[in-house]
Amino acid sequence: MPGEFDFISRFLSHFPKARVPVGPGDDCAVLPPSRHPQCVTTDALVEDVHFTRAAFSAEDIGHKALAVNLSDLASMGATPRWFVCALALPRDYPARELSGLARGMSALARAHRIALVGGNFTAARELSLTITAAGETSRPPLTRAGARPGDLLYVSGTLGDARLGLAHLRAGKRRGDAVRRQRRPEPRVALGRLAARFASAALDVSDGLAQDLGHLCQASRVRAEVELSRLPLSEVVRREAGAEAALAGGEDYELLMAVPPGRGRAFERACGAGGHAVTRIGVFSEGKGWVIRDAAGREVERPGGFDHFG
Amino acid sequence: MPGEFDFISRFLSHFPKARVPVGPGDDCAVLPPSRHPQCVTTDALVEDVHFTRAAFSAEDIGHKALAVNLSDLASMGATPRWFVCALALPRDYPARELSGLARGMSALARAHRIALVGGNFTAARELSLTITAAGETSRPPLTRAGARPGDLLYVSGTLGDARLGLAHLRAGKRRGDAVRRQRRPEPRVALGRLAARFASAALDVSDGLAQDLGHLCQASRVRAEVELSRLPLSEVVRREAGAEAALAGGEDYELLMAVPPGRGRAFERACGAGGHAVTRIGVFSEGKGWVIRDAAGREVERPGGFDHFG
Repeated sequence: MPGEFDFISRFLSHFPKARVPVGPGDDCAVLPPSRHPQCVTTDALVEDVHFTRAAFSAEDIGHKALAVNLSDLASMGATPRWFVCALALPRDYPARELSGLARGMSALARAHRIALVGGNFTAARELSLTITAAGETSRPPLTRAGARPGDLLYVSGTLGDARLGLAHLRAGKRRGDAVRRQRRPEPRVALGRLAARFASAALDVSDGLAQDLGHLCQASRVRAEVELSRLPLSEVVRREAGAEAALAGGEDYELLMAVPPGRGRAFERACGAGGHAVTRIGVFSEGKGWVIRDAAGREVERPGGFDHFG
Repeated sequence: MPGEFDFISRFLSHFPKARVPVGPGDDCAVLPPSRHPQCVTTDALVEDVHFTRAAFSAEDIGHKALAVNLSDLASMGATPRWFVCALALPRDYPARELSGLARGMSALARAHRIALVGGNFTAARELSLTITAAGETSRPPLTRAGARPGDLLYVSGTLGDARLGLAHLRAGKRRGDAVRRQRRPEPRVALGRLAARFASAALDVSDGLAQDLGHLCQASRVRAEVELSRLPLSEVVRREAGAEAALAGGEDYELLMAVPPGRGRAFERACGAGGHAVTRIGVFSEGKGWVIRDAAGREVERPGGFDHFG
């Protein structure tokens, strides 16, 4: 296999040259001072935990490794600025696959104008990609802790597709919208920036609505009431999984947002004008925890969250 | 085993609370704007590549994972500010070992006043720690590209100890200074900051002097002449390995610095006053590549570098 330095230049060749004082190749990248607060996140994709090489192309893996980090920036309302990528590669990892990782990652990086400024290569038994990404916020960042009683609860896009896509992949199905949502999640970066003008809190739905809404309620010390019938479901999820399954979700990478009641209509209008699909699914109140009610007002049993770790 | 969230709080409990707008626990950490340019590096430690659990305690592993990143900040002359840590843990990883990782890492973090602001946990077959660390420089950062013909070449500390320590560990020896240098490298952060006042270029010796000096010459487009007899060797390296072996080194985490000739004496005085051991080992000239000469002026054959990846 090629040496470490050949690997690095092959990988970097797929990315535009970063416009920073010092880019990849020195001991550190050097970045200009940031005028605004910086949001920083780190997230890893590990072979046989988050993906298999049988079900994901190298491009998918490269895309998803960056996407899950961009989704964290999106949830704070941050504008992506730079990232570093630490790659752990099996010793027999093919060079053309490395180019595939880079292509998938760089296409998404270009779309969101985020610069690869540095990285690291190491050998390992299993393939993994650990990315640290940073963005800037000119407005106060959206945390999980800002929701207030009376705020409206919104979610973007549709829920449950990625989990259904995982089931499809496990069943040997390699195509379709659900599979695509599992392989190529689209971080809601533009929506996050828009939400920063309206929302009091946000987070991205990575562990499933059931679990992540719990995090939001806990951090904000509020209670949420969700209407099951309002959960936004795609055709395929409605047909094959149903709303209860969508609650468990996992890897949706949609945004969950709390919006003060007086701002709800303006928020919805701005989303409509921006082409962002959002759905009001409930409301926050005083108290703890959260419930989901069906059309008859009965509480729906809550599924566990999606935990790669468990 | 405990769930992901128990693991996170157990790990975090060993670190002081970060004094930042938003610390660990949200989708992103939020950091205040930086007044100065930021230096950012990412580096990973992987089980059975960079360490074994038989030869390294959890504290050693936690220490070393942060140390190799701090060494990159040191080589730029940066003051450490914040880091994030992505942990990949085998499913049966014992909770007390996790505390050991955190203790080793937090002791070094406290010593260098760098704040853990975020992180990530994932399952994996092998233990690995990927850290991204950032520092600030009020002076122009020291890159690899600034050395000029006539500059003096300095190195800190002694060379070859960590590689000898690795040989000791492989031979079943578990104690001694060389083993300690392998397990617990001390990043030269204070020296790096001092060097930023004098040096024209620097890098840290992670792949061995032979390889890293090559990087410095290539980036700066200069030639280096090194005197073998001047290489700083510890007693144990002199006795058991010799100067040629020290050249190959690997994981020394000492600083290699180019200092303009008119600044050499002031630099040496400042190092003496600060308690930093540095040795002038050669000089830069016009040209390409570099040579090492023995006492008789003969060129010494150059060993290959230390490449975990190869």
